[in-house]
Amino acid sequence: MNNRSNRSSKTSRPRERTQEILFGINPITEAIRAGRRKIFQIIHKEGLQGAPAASLISLARTKGIQVTIAPMEKIVALAGADGSQGIVAMVSPPVYSSFDKLLDQLAAMDNPKVTALDGVMDPRNLGAIIRSAEAFGLAAVIFPERRAAGYTAVAAKASAGAGEHMRLCPVVNVGEALRLLRKEGFSCVALEGTSEEEMGSPPTGSVVVVLGGEGTGLRPLVTKRCGRSVRIPMTGRVGSLNVSAAAAIAFHWVASGRG
Amino acid sequence: MNNRSNRSSKTSRPRERTQEILFGINPITEAIRAGRRKIFQIIHKEGLQGAPAASLISLARTKGIQVTIAPMEKIVALAGADGSQGIVAMVSPPVYSSFDKLLDQLAAMDNPKVTALDGVMDPRNLGAIIRSAEAFGLAAVIFPERRAAGYTAVAAKASAGAGEHMRLCPVVNVGEALRLLRKEGFSCVALEGTSEEEMGSPPTGSVVVVLGGEGTGLRPLVTKRCGRSVRIPMTGRVGSLNVSAAAAIAFHWVASGRG
Repeated sequence: MNNRSNRSSKTSRPRERTQEILFGINPITEAIRAGRRKIFQIIHKEGLQGAPAASLISLARTKGIQVTIAPMEKIVALAGADGSQGIVAMVSPPVYSSFDKLLDQLAAMDNPKVTALDGVMDPRNLGAIIRSAEAFGLAAVIFPERRAAGYTAVAAKASAGAGEHMRLCPVVNVGEALRLLRKEGFSCVALEGTSEEEMGSPPTGSVVVVLGGEGTGLRPLVTKRCGRSVRIPMTGRVGSLNVSAAAAIAFHWVASGRG
Repeated sequence: MNNRSNRSSKTSRPRERTQEILFGINPITEAIRAGRRKIFQIIHKEGLQGAPAASLISLARTKGIQVTIAPMEKIVALAGADGSQGIVAMVSPPVYSSFDKLLDQLAAMDNPKVTALDGVMDPRNLGAIIRSAEAFGLAAVIFPERRAAGYTAVAAKASAGAGEHMRLCPVVNVGEALRLLRKEGFSCVALEGTSEEEMGSPPTGSVVVVLGGEGTGLRPLVTKRCGRSVRIPMTGRVGSLNVSAAAAIAFHWVASGRG
């Protein structure tokens, strides 16, 4: 046992284990502004164009962040996905909220609105949902720590950097998180296509909006934890919304319930 | 001139020029249901799983469409993008509406709602917008035929097949299209983050909702063509929505203006 831990501490340095990639102008800019993650290094292609890129490089220099230039192929390889915009950063992992700490923080707020996701699988959808949550002043995005998209570089890009500011709270069990939120006085509204109640006047007070995954929707056990479910009235032949479109409508709705 | 046209008719057969790819279960299923495109052939991987896939194959067989099996690598190569779900179809190009014909069709409807996009560049955003438009019963999606995303296979996938049913109308000049729609009695509402008017009670009657592109928003000349502009109230620090999230909120809003 001693041998194993010795070997482990020799072969993997903590710094290597705690670096990941962020790509794109908005995510890197917002990561610096938010100040939650350590930014080890920024790497961009030669001749990066545009005012937002110039602002980002200038911001990085004022913060003493190392900025280096590399061929575009290296940037693309480091990003590992489309949309690098010619710039990547080596950063510490995202800072997640623990659920206990989140409950304490919410208790100190006036009528907070949060969302809980039950199995959104596509990191682009997660990112788009985080972006909308931030735009409508939601206090946190709660999501399962397993069998669901996490806040990866792709999610960060889709969030346009909003995820760097938002409280992101992975939980073991979404149903249990809802039970505890309701105990703290939150009303819990699930969005479900099959609900009899149409989305009408918005809920007030502390609210958690619950959304299902892309294909499967909400699991019955999670729905059971919610006091109310509503549906977005639709009329089309295909008649379904992407989960991030449904989220935008739902967050706009709860944000309009002043108080 | 005669020589050139002779050569052209010899070297390129019409059938080759008019086949394109669709991929994913929903787009192919909806293409068959809508019946607007010719489906030449469906190719899927061996051991395709799931009820939606089985329904699609069964539907294709009842329509007499040739269904063949190929290795997954070939499916991926044919799709040319992520998300094939192991199935592609060779189809005729999308059937677009001409603007003149669209005006005639709209004139026969009660209080139609349509949307016009000014330079949405990402086909996934275009697809998501078409999906939301279909879900909220909009009659058409108008977009520029150049310098903007077209209804590609990627857009079809992002629309979950809704684009196979929706009237899609590419136009040379969006501003001119808006002028003609207003002449026909449409009220024209632009979504703009800088507008002084918050999205309040929805417009009634015939309405065109105008949305700008991802980075650039609406061009001033297009805004000038609109009688009214509204903004979605937002509160966050990053404080911007993806264009497809804004579209979902706007379409839900105009659809709620019964009449």
